[in-house]
Amino acid sequence: MSASETQAQQIDEQAIRQLVDEWLEASKRGDLETVLSLMTDDVLFMVPGQDPFGKEAFAANSRVMKDHRVEGISDIQEIKVLGDWAWMHNYLRVTVTGPDGNVIKKAGHVLSVLRKNSGGRWQLARDANLLM
Amino acid sequence: MSASETQAQQIDEQAIRQLVDEWLEASKRGDLETVLSLMTDDVLFMVPGQDPFGKEAFAANSRVMKDHRVEGISDIQEIKVLGDWAWMHNYLRVTVTGPDGNVIKKAGHVLSVLRKNSGGRWQLARDANLLM
Repeated sequence: MSASETQAQQIDEQAIRQLVDEWLEASKRGDLETVLSLMTDDVLFMVPGQDPFGKEAFAANSRVMKDHRVEGISDIQEIKVLGDWAWMHNYLRVTVTGPDGNVIKKAGHVLSVLRKNSGGRWQLARDANLLM
Repeated sequence: MSASETQAQQIDEQAIRQLVDEWLEASKRGDLETVLSLMTDDVLFMVPGQDPFGKEAFAANSRVMKDHRVEGISDIQEIKVLGDWAWMHNYLRVTVTGPDGNVIKKAGHVLSVLRKNSGGRWQLARDANLLM
């Protein structure tokens, strides 16, 4: 791999790390529109014990949970950039605080597929989330 | 994409489908060595409720389960080939029959990352398995 290719990969990897940070910060402040802008229109979320769901169901679920504060801490294990695609292995810890002060903590590994859109921006495309 | 690139992708996609079939057939007949040959040495399996594990732990677990018959049916949802890498979304139904005739059925979605090795053979590299 040439030096310029290596540098391009590092730039993409950094952009993906920023995407994760932006996602967690937007989630924390309840900024659903920003979170939705960080995923492809055909995104698919896979979680244990239910059918995969897409962007609309993600949005609907977030609106139901809008009185909850969602704080996530990510510990990215691996990012592999493959041109306009990438995959990432992340370890995520999430604290959800309800309006009554009830706290639920979840943690687990996440395997994600990301795609760079025509505007050069990385977005989440597929996400298998093992948080329990 | 040129016609020859499209054709190469179709050949790779077919090879990945064969890998899945071979995996399930080898699992069914208890042929652990073949199953192990279908994964990279640095493979990582992610499943709900436990730490990710690698090839050695997979082998050790399979040896513990050697009196069990494992029958899987796969329904591949998507394969995306990206050069020597690929990702796949699969829906898997697995029936495990114990030596006492006890049957456990599991089903769920799987997001996998595959890699073509230097010999041109596809192998499983990362696997987030949501079977419950």
